[in-house]
Amino acid sequence: MHYNLALIGFGNVARSLARLLLRKQDLLKTQYDVTFSFTGISTGRHGCAVNPDGLDIEQALGLVESGKSLSPLSTFHIDDSPSVIKHSSAHVMFENSPVNTQTGQPALDHIRTALELGMHAITANKGPVVHGYRELTALAKTKEKTFGFESTVLGGSPVFSVFRETFPLAELSSFKGILNATTNIILSRMENGESYENAVKYCQSVGVAETDPTNDVDGWDAAIKVAALITVLMDTPFTPQQVNPIGIRGITRDMIEKASAEGKRYKLVCSVEKTGEAIHARVAPELVDSSSPLYGMMNSSTGISFRTDVLPDYSITVSEREGMAGGPVETAYGLFADFVNVARSEIMST
Amino acid sequence: MHYNLALIGFGNVARSLARLLLRKQDLLKTQYDVTFSFTGISTGRHGCAVNPDGLDIEQALGLVESGKSLSPLSTFHIDDSPSVIKHSSAHVMFENSPVNTQTGQPALDHIRTALELGMHAITANKGPVVHGYRELTALAKTKEKTFGFESTVLGGSPVFSVFRETFPLAELSSFKGILNATTNIILSRMENGESYENAVKYCQSVGVAETDPTNDVDGWDAAIKVAALITVLMDTPFTPQQVNPIGIRGITRDMIEKASAEGKRYKLVCSVEKTGEAIHARVAPELVDSSSPLYGMMNSSTGISFRTDVLPDYSITVSEREGMAGGPVETAYGLFADFVNVARSEIMST
Repeated sequence: MHYNLALIGFGNVARSLARLLLRKQDLLKTQYDVTFSFTGISTGRHGCAVNPDGLDIEQALGLVESGKSLSPLSTFHIDDSPSVIKHSSAHVMFENSPVNTQTGQPALDHIRTALELGMHAITANKGPVVHGYRELTALAKTKEKTFGFESTVLGGSPVFSVFRETFPLAELSSFKGILNATTNIILSRMENGESYENAVKYCQSVGVAETDPTNDVDGWDAAIKVAALITVLMDTPFTPQQVNPIGIRGITRDMIEKASAEGKRYKLVCSVEKTGEAIHARVAPELVDSSSPLYGMMNSSTGISFRTDVLPDYSITVSEREGMAGGPVETAYGLFADFVNVARSEIMST
Repeated sequence: MHYNLALIGFGNVARSLARLLLRKQDLLKTQYDVTFSFTGISTGRHGCAVNPDGLDIEQALGLVESGKSLSPLSTFHIDDSPSVIKHSSAHVMFENSPVNTQTGQPALDHIRTALELGMHAITANKGPVVHGYRELTALAKTKEKTFGFESTVLGGSPVFSVFRETFPLAELSSFKGILNATTNIILSRMENGESYENAVKYCQSVGVAETDPTNDVDGWDAAIKVAALITVLMDTPFTPQQVNPIGIRGITRDMIEKASAEGKRYKLVCSVEKTGEAIHARVAPELVDSSSPLYGMMNSSTGISFRTDVLPDYSITVSEREGMAGGPVETAYGLFADFVNVARSEIMST
């Protein structure tokens, strides 16, 4: 089985995905007899390239990382993402354009186009999940293709697939977690005596916070993840606006010191409860004590606890570890896992 | 799709499974168009019953729970498990006979028989996983059937399926966890001032420890779970004897008090590391501090952390919660999940 792959968006995550695919290509071949080539790449600032016979990915990585344009690699002139998708002859389109929390665009259109052309569509972008889950899932089903989005929450670690594959017919009544690493790092550093401003600067310096940290510190990143989880796991469309998050700007060093003296910590807690058909979602700073599974999640560690009708509370924690902090390399694994699962299920059905 | 089910072993877990199937039968029908009937039941002390047209399961539950024999329900005389399997016309055989850590028998033979007859075989019994994983998996593959054992570790909560379904092509290098609830309850109660003897008695009174608590307190239950995890997840046959566990009998109240004063706790820690082809496994009491994800696992809470080449450390924690303590009802969900996954994949492939 050979797969042509199109990469729409070629930032850190997509480039990490390309490298992960190269690193695992022998395993893919020996375990599933799967091979692949890259037939289309679209970037924000370095042009586009299409070659249905396969692009030289090492060369593409080199060009973009040295600030050059991809266009010399292209077999014909092309300069927008929809055209790359259409002319790539891809079997799988990876969508990693910038997140747009308000509309999900242009990712939504890219995924729609790819699915309509009979491609699988896999994304690390939360926008299309929140703004198009039902439509895109229905379209994928009609086309017998997959709309995959494992890497949108918990930075590449399995969460949607855990629920889909390993909890059959369980009813999810509530969940609770820490879903934004940046704010968790800021609160952890403030607990160690750093000011809010310096903690934000630290996050910016290591690349986990953007120049404008609003999206993280005001709770919008957490809120869109909560909306995505509700939309998918509770099969109920939900927006970040409905979550209406409260961020961490109101938390002072004094408050943290006082909490610490009482053996407590502030965490930006995401919590969702379903009562009948009503869903109550909340993202806000909360005091947690050592009896909470959230208490031990420090720095970039994140996690989520699920309550169902069939099992004790089931928690997934993704813990910081040296050299792996939930960055683009790990997000790329979520995209890779979606791809391997697509290939596995196609192999099984042939 | 209609499934005939045989229950080999009809203790707490199997009876909970029967009740769970009844509770979820409408969902099974509406979501997957799956129906089922019970066509064979074999018990340790209440006889056996077979009826290929379907037994009255409510009646069977009533008979056994009031100490009566099942034989009046049987369409013909039958009095051993292999015969029940052979004459049940079952599509799925659930094996829940008592665990035999030394040989895996008779569960191993029951599963072999069922698979050879073209049935799916699903078990909560660790014995056949440790003593027959490769053989039974190969046999199941030949027959295009499933050998399912999700409920053998973490008491029914997903762990094997998480790895199988959601971590494709990840390399597992180590794992660490608390896998035995009984010893964790004992250590938690000792930390609250109870004596070892009284803590054991408490566990016996609520049914989590047997009259002879050796299997739990000397680490053998944890060791067989470790062996099962290594055997399956690292695809390397491993026995509890190779784990050679150290139990908790040597831990005194004095030691626990001293640890507590230093902010530490004793836990019966299971840890496994793979270096090249060598696997080093250990089950022993260890001191953990509050930076460890194991520190917060109290009473019947259990859990496991996985280290792979692709993600930060990924931990699953199953936390005690009122009314759900990882007993037979929850173990039954693991059996149920294996069954639903069998049915789902058969539906998908038709």
